Amino acid sequence: MALTLGEIAVRFGCELHGDPDTAVIAVATLAGAGPGDIGFLANAAYKAQLADTAASAVILTQDDAPDCPVPCLVTPNPYAIYAHVAQMLYPEPPLQSGVHPSAVVDDDCQLGAGVEVCAGVVIGAGTVIGDRAYIGPNTVIGNNVTLGADTRLFAQVTLYDGVTLGERCRIHAGTVVGSDGFGIAPSDTGWVKVPQIGSVVIGNDVEVGANCCIDRGAIDDTRLGDDVKLDNQVQIAHNVVIGAHTAIAGQSGVAGSTTIGERCLIGGSVAVSGHLTVADNVSVMGRGSVSRSIDQPGVYSAVFSVEEAGKWRKIAARVKRLDAMAGKLRELESAVKKLAAGK
Amino acid sequence: MALTLGEIAVRFGCELHGDPDTAVIAVATLAGAGPGDIGFLANAAYKAQLADTAASAVILTQDDAPDCPVPCLVTPNPYAIYAHVAQMLYPEPPLQSGVHPSAVVDDDCQLGAGVEVCAGVVIGAGTVIGDRAYIGPNTVIGNNVTLGADTRLFAQVTLYDGVTLGERCRIHAGTVVGSDGFGIAPSDTGWVKVPQIGSVVIGNDVEVGANCCIDRGAIDDTRLGDDVKLDNQVQIAHNVVIGAHTAIAGQSGVAGSTTIGERCLIGGSVAVSGHLTVADNVSVMGRGSVSRSIDQPGVYSAVFSVEEAGKWRKIAARVKRLDAMAGKLRELESAVKKLAAGK
Amino acid sequence: MALTLGEIAVRFGCELHGDPDTAVIAVATLAGAGPGDIGFLANAAYKAQLADTAASAVILTQDDAPDCPVPCLVTPNPYAIYAHVAQMLYPEPPLQSGVHPSAVVDDDCQLGAGVEVCAGVVIGAGTVIGDRAYIGPNTVIGNNVTLGADTRLFAQVTLYDGVTLGERCRIHAGTVVGSDGFGIAPSDTGWVKVPQIGSVVIGNDVEVGANCCIDRGAIDDTRLGDDVKLDNQVQIAHNVVIGAHTAIAGQSGVAGSTTIGERCLIGGSVAVSGHLTVADNVSVMGRGSVSRSIDQPGVYSAVFSVEEAGKWRKIAARVKRLDAMAGKLRELESAVKKLAAGK
Repeated sequence: MALTLGEIAVRFGCELHGDPDTAVIAVATLAGAGPGDIGFLANAAYKAQLADTAASAVILTQDDAPDCPVPCLVTPNPYAIYAHVAQMLYPEPPLQSGVHPSAVVDDDCQLGAGVEVCAGVVIGAGTVIGDRAYIGPNTVIGNNVTLGADTRLFAQVTLYDGVTLGERCRIHAGTVVGSDGFGIAPSDTGWVKVPQIGSVVIGNDVEVGANCCIDRGAIDDTRLGDDVKLDNQVQIAHNVVIGAHTAIAGQSGVAGSTTIGERCLIGGSVAVSGHLTVADNVSVMGRGSVSRSIDQPGVYSAVFSVEEAGKWRKIAARVKRLDAMAGKLRELESAVKKLAAGK
Repeated sequence: MALTLGEIAVRFGCELHGDPDTAVIAVATLAGAGPGDIGFLANAAYKAQLADTAASAVILTQDDAPDCPVPCLVTPNPYAIYAHVAQMLYPEPPLQSGVHPSAVVDDDCQLGAGVEVCAGVVIGAGTVIGDRAYIGPNTVIGNNVTLGADTRLFAQVTLYDGVTLGERCRIHAGTVVGSDGFGIAPSDTGWVKVPQIGSVVIGNDVEVGANCCIDRGAIDDTRLGDDVKLDNQVQIAHNVVIGAHTAIAGQSGVAGSTTIGERCLIGGSVAVSGHLTVADNVSVMGRGSVSRSIDQPGVYSAVFSVEEAGKWRKIAARVKRLDAMAGKLRELESAVKKLAAGK
Repeated sequence: MALTLGEIAVRFGCELHGDPDTAVIAVATLAGAGPGDIGFLANAAYKAQLADTAASAVILTQDDAPDCPVPCLVTPNPYAIYAHVAQMLYPEPPLQSGVHPSAVVDDDCQLGAGVEVCAGVVIGAGTVIGDRAYIGPNTVIGNNVTLGADTRLFAQVTLYDGVTLGERCRIHAGTVVGSDGFGIAPSDTGWVKVPQIGSVVIGNDVEVGANCCIDRGAIDDTRLGDDVKLDNQVQIAHNVVIGAHTAIAGQSGVAGSTTIGERCLIGGSVAVSGHLTVADNVSVMGRGSVSRSIDQPGVYSAVFSVEEAGKWRKIAARVKRLDAMAGKLRELESAVKKLAAGK
């Protein structure tokens, strides 16, 4: 597939510097690009690569345009325009409509038009699959599941009974949606299992990475809003509610019954405790622990970057003796007060 | 299915306030309940919902009973009684005894009475499956595995060769039991793989969440006691031993050769280092790091909740300069001592 | 299988104390060993078990040899020699060459000599599988994948399209290689998916644990060097580069575009931020957060081990009031200065 810069400029409202007939057929990094490639500059860290790029064109901002040695497309949001162009140059492979003979699809299951069901798939009774959905190899879908149109499940996904996914969702390999929440009641004879009778309801345009877990609700449902994006190995516990457009990076977890607002950005390896509320437009930096509700938008953090181990041992020891240090400070204060008074 | 309050009261020894013939057919939250629903109150945070609940009945403690506007079942442990009632109202779906034609079960494999083997399952030689076990779709069971009666493996579980599970266990989708421990020996030419020849032995009534990993032992076995409960994405390394009734929340990990006692409560995202011993009845709060053995029961913690990022940067900088602060404190002390002596 | 101590000594260049005809048929811990077993001593913590061991032989260092009550093999690196001996005593099960009839292998796929393709496997078009590779049950391999000779994929592995693995690799169950990196561009109407068109290139002798994720690159490839070892549930984001011989323990994650050097040792539950560079020969202790590049080899750490919860609450409160403490210290300093000047 080839696109001309003129087409791109018109389609996405960019200002074009250069020949509108210049054609691009692939994307590349500024450093790795050659003829026919289109690159982008959205992060100042890569600005140094601009001068020597051999790309046929670059997508960048007004500020960077004067330094661009090749044709360029100017836009306030180069990364998003790059994403759109890349989507056009690398379209999803077309579906091969039909059910593979090795798939086991219950008779009481509605498949929409143009659906592709790959080898080894198992689909239960009462399930409804929207038009043009893609069900990747060895995926398991339980009973009474609802899948919106154009949704794609990659290989080995598991959807438990009763789960609902919207349209245009993408769920990556190994992800499990609808497993039991961690509901156990202590008793004199040990743990009593608390049946998890809620389900999971996922909106439209949601992408979930590989090997994630999204548990079903204990009574009410676990809910992900439209356009929520989860990276790999994210854990969403029962009855969590995540607002629209919120993105959560890899290995983060949200404990039970917590509500996260819209347009939040949760970094990687973040742990959010249960029964909390996080406001809209909150960013939590990687490795942060959220143990209290956050009611104001803003950027939140709490991480100590590693130090040379010997140095850290001293710091940690000091921290654990802070009480003694505070005591000494109080003693000094009163000593100084006495001295001052004695004068 | 319907239960009367009279039946519940008798069966679980609750004190009944209200008409024993009141029937309930479903569970619900106090806020979401309507006629026919039974709710429970076990967490003071939800007490405010009691006054307006439209539930047909509520399970609660003696203290809360006077404030309940509808019939109630009084018990010291409402959450456990709720769990039992929910189990009766929402029984596990009955098994469909038999082996799906697409399953590949080795001829040298013993299946107990009433076992259900779903589509796409693969079971190796020498494996023994107890009565009424459920083997979910696309699950893979190796050779010489032993599964106790009434144990349920959900979809896409993997049990490596030689693993033993007790009775009434539940293993959720994507979980891997018996993969190699992380045993590698450094040598001049690189890493040498250390064969992991132990196995995994899991007791009765163990529940394991989705996408967990429980590694086989290096020489001896990795062991989980009866009634151990693991949430999702928990990692249990080789030769870990976990005592009966211990519960571990999501995304926690226990490194190799560590022994955790009985009735411990390990929060989410906890990291326990290797070669440690944790006593019985220890609770570790979420995100804690256990880098030393714990020999006393109690509650343990070490987490800084996130702060506004600018504020945290200052705190972190202060912490890393604690040595300088301590030095200044010492200087002041000696200066004050001199001043005091000079008077 | 049996080995004599004489054979082992010659093969691995150990000094033998005892009868070279002594035969060993199994490995065991020093405490659990009996006749016919060979043990090893590589960790001083287990030295106490040496005096009473009933092993037929022990692999140990020169220093420990005088205290060994049974025949021994002396070497500077007992753990590596043990690993080699265990590999000989417990060889991998031989492959059963051929394709299981339930596997779905595209016609346009090259299988090397002696390859074993297990039940339920799905392999796409254009894929090339090296000689003697093992493809475990229910594994899914996409199109245009390259697998080196003698590589083993355990059950339920997923390799996305275009991924390359070297020779003698081992990938454990549930691991996903080549899923999309977390590339999303913010725009006025929500997130725009950034196509992930790079791939994953993995060297020779790489072992990856269970339920890991290794994402494909955004434009260039994600790369793991030769002899890299990953434990379970490790997350490698897009465009990460990991140098040869580096080992990463369980539940650690490396964010996008970070480069980690050769021979690094990354402990469990470590979080490495994106766009960083970590030098060769860096060790990061468990639970460390790496939020800045590390350019010097060494050992790095930043973890507070848990304390009794009440004690920790006080410590955390003190830390968050460090600013106030520093302020007080400044006041005292100036007060003392005034006092000293006034004398």
